Amino acid sequence: MVLAVDCSRDGWTGCYPVTPHRFKTQGLSPNMQAVRWHPPSYDIRVETIPTPEIKHPDDAIVKVKLAALCGSDLHIYRGHAGVDKIHTCGHEFIGEVVALGSSYGSNVEGRPKLYSTLKVGDKVVSPFTVNCGECHVCRLGYTARCPEGALFGSPALEGGQAQYVRVPKAGGTLFNLSNPDTWSSALSSHDKEKALTGLSDSSLLMLADILPTGVFAATQAVNHPKVLPVVTGRPWPQCLSPEATTEGNEISFTPEDRILTIAVIGLGPVGICATIGLLDVVATRQIPYRIVAIDLLEARREKMKAVFAAIDPSGKGDGEFVVLDMDAAKAQVKKWTGAVGCTAILEVVGHADALSAAYDLVRAFGVIVSVGVHGAPPMPFTGRQLYNKNVSFDFGRCPARAMFPPAFDLLVKRQDVFGGVGQPASLIDRIVNFEEATESYRAFDKGEVGKVIFSPWK
Amino acid sequence: MVLAVDCSRDGWTGCYPVTPHRFKTQGLSPNMQAVRWHPPSYDIRVETIPTPEIKHPDDAIVKVKLAALCGSDLHIYRGHAGVDKIHTCGHEFIGEVVALGSSYGSNVEGRPKLYSTLKVGDKVVSPFTVNCGECHVCRLGYTARCPEGALFGSPALEGGQAQYVRVPKAGGTLFNLSNPDTWSSALSSHDKEKALTGLSDSSLLMLADILPTGVFAATQAVNHPKVLPVVTGRPWPQCLSPEATTEGNEISFTPEDRILTIAVIGLGPVGICATIGLLDVVATRQIPYRIVAIDLLEARREKMKAVFAAIDPSGKGDGEFVVLDMDAAKAQVKKWTGAVGCTAILEVVGHADALSAAYDLVRAFGVIVSVGVHGAPPMPFTGRQLYNKNVSFDFGRCPARAMFPPAFDLLVKRQDVFGGVGQPASLIDRIVNFEEATESYRAFDKGEVGKVIFSPWK
Repeated sequence: MVLAVDCSRDGWTGCYPVTPHRFKTQGLSPNMQAVRWHPPSYDIRVETIPTPEIKHPDDAIVKVKLAALCGSDLHIYRGHAGVDKIHTCGHEFIGEVVALGSSYGSNVEGRPKLYSTLKVGDKVVSPFTVNCGECHVCRLGYTARCPEGALFGSPALEGGQAQYVRVPKAGGTLFNLSNPDTWSSALSSHDKEKALTGLSDSSLLMLADILPTGVFAATQAVNHPKVLPVVTGRPWPQCLSPEATTEGNEISFTPEDRILTIAVIGLGPVGICATIGLLDVVATRQIPYRIVAIDLLEARREKMKAVFAAIDPSGKGDGEFVVLDMDAAKAQVKKWTGAVGCTAILEVVGHADALSAAYDLVRAFGVIVSVGVHGAPPMPFTGRQLYNKNVSFDFGRCPARAMFPPAFDLLVKRQDVFGGVGQPASLIDRIVNFEEATESYRAFDKGEVGKVIFSPWK
Repeated sequence: MVLAVDCSRDGWTGCYPVTPHRFKTQGLSPNMQAVRWHPPSYDIRVETIPTPEIKHPDDAIVKVKLAALCGSDLHIYRGHAGVDKIHTCGHEFIGEVVALGSSYGSNVEGRPKLYSTLKVGDKVVSPFTVNCGECHVCRLGYTARCPEGALFGSPALEGGQAQYVRVPKAGGTLFNLSNPDTWSSALSSHDKEKALTGLSDSSLLMLADILPTGVFAATQAVNHPKVLPVVTGRPWPQCLSPEATTEGNEISFTPEDRILTIAVIGLGPVGICATIGLLDVVATRQIPYRIVAIDLLEARREKMKAVFAAIDPSGKGDGEFVVLDMDAAKAQVKKWTGAVGCTAILEVVGHADALSAAYDLVRAFGVIVSVGVHGAPPMPFTGRQLYNKNVSFDFGRCPARAMFPPAFDLLVKRQDVFGGVGQPASLIDRIVNFEEATESYRAFDKGEVGKVIFSPWK
């Protein structure tokens, strides 16, 4: 996620019922280390707490190998989220299954495949929210809004910045990196397995949130009906149906009409992933493009430039790519399109000012995709403004579990970017142990470090 | 359009340049009758004013056969639109070309076909806004936001409630009902011509605004990516690409998952057209549905029920259709979907309260299409609310010129509804002459009559 979550208002129902069954987690130490938040704010402590146990037959216990710090953890850290319950932080983690509830077996009919196939010892990555995988909302693929869902690292569900984490509804939630047959991919099984052995845990951890969220933003923009005329070369509304003809009063498109002009606002880790996702789509589908990636902070712009430089030429497609601050970006869009504006905007900040800038930059009949976590301020628009520009919006949280397959494929393709730690082009700044957790939160909050990963067993 | 337009802020630039050429409109009486609005409000006068002349080579002069009164005319009528310029009212008209500028000829290369084919004597209907048909925005099909556009019946452009009207950029704007080769259709040329001879002028007049706007609303909803899982039977994001596979952890859809649940809020003429358009899409594409059509006014609900009753059974598709007030509709959606909510909402009121109700009714990852003309109040949402429900919005004005072909096909199919005047199932309440214009505005404003059409030559 892009910014932190106000857990008290975030659509999930709070605690899970504790069933009468309690399945002992065998062979694990009774206590563990965890990074805990204490109210009211800025108080992170590494504490010894009981190791989680199976509470429900659908649970799994995961031994955490790596857990990342995310920009959205800062809302609670800063005390802005209306939270007052001490809890374990973190919603990005990768690890190994060490215990499973009684729902898991060799032949569980009618439930997600993982209930039959997940085994102790499997390597897994989790999306940042739980989802059952079985309800109407999950069946449609909208896993981020499962009514039984919960956000890791919130008062409702202990997080992954710990040595162990309990994963409710694990058969719907987890992504089994030891069994590539449990997800579809454009890659063959062989290539999937080969890729898995080549990918570092720190790069696979990007699947937990930032990479699928970035891919979700890019996917929504390029597939929006209002973008289709540019992509298909056929005018609205004929662009919607392949069999429709355009032999009326319309005149032919120029090459200029086929250029996708997109601004990405906000170049934190998710914004960079969104840009990488966007570059992948336009390269794969051979769509000519002009992309401007925007951030107010020079350090983020420099990171974006380094990432773009590291991407192999075949993954960059055919277009123009610039990284600018907001004023320069507005001038650039004007230079590219005159008074028209951008085809679409990826708003990856989660702030009303970013939405206002997106409105200024987008063309009439344009699309604003907003994957940031917004706060309490009202939308900075009148209905008339939105009518006058025929604006479309796609708001909301990434259904990360559903986006794992395309995000995984992109991770494999973009090892030029996701492989390293601490290099100019890598999204991960450093890997530290829990002794540095308190200081890492402080430094991350101040913008003194980029993305930090915790290694709980060092 | 659904409600009136605040012309001063509506994105167009005001007056057209008067070129040095002034082409005399020959053979017409120098003066004509027109329905004129006078500031500050509620002041409609039928006046004798000069007959319009060709001012620009791209102009056409149309002799008006019928011109309709639209709900959106009431914004200016009531003095709510910040307008202070006396002008001729009306943006819905049908008529006959009586004069053409010098741009029209037998072989105009590279311009819209009408510049070569439009002739004096042709029967035409106009969209409610002018569009050049030649710029980037028009080429993409987004004709409602042509930078050279203007709204008829506003301070920027004299309206169609007159005996004659000047149509700027007529080769891009008009729809030539005398030459069916100038638009594409699912019908054959023969069937198009046959249909044209069978359609009354009053029903063809529905093309000017309300029918394409209704079809636009329905088209956007059913084609939105977030609706695709229901329509295709494949989960997000596999629903986006036909070649993607779903052999992962997903479980099969139930029949319930394939039912499109849609609420239409607002049953004025556009809302009824949107409902008719929606019923046509679900019947044609054989999508099971549950549709609730909502209005606060009993008279509008009764009209909607009569329209539905008049539609032939094959055009109703396979689903449930109910007409309710808002409270009953919310209970109905809960009964249908539990806590989930509607797949999509067509908001056809143009008011913040209707948007709030749409938010309450829509499911997470749902779509709100808003074709109403909104006013100055801010959007009634916080960013957090939109994040929490993963809401998508499509705002704005119908590109009526681009929507004419599908709207025409629907008009031909739905002659059971669009044929009559003054019957329970017809959208047109009465056809009157200009002597009744002042009284008609008053009665229409008070809700005492439904849609009124003026016949300027009676």
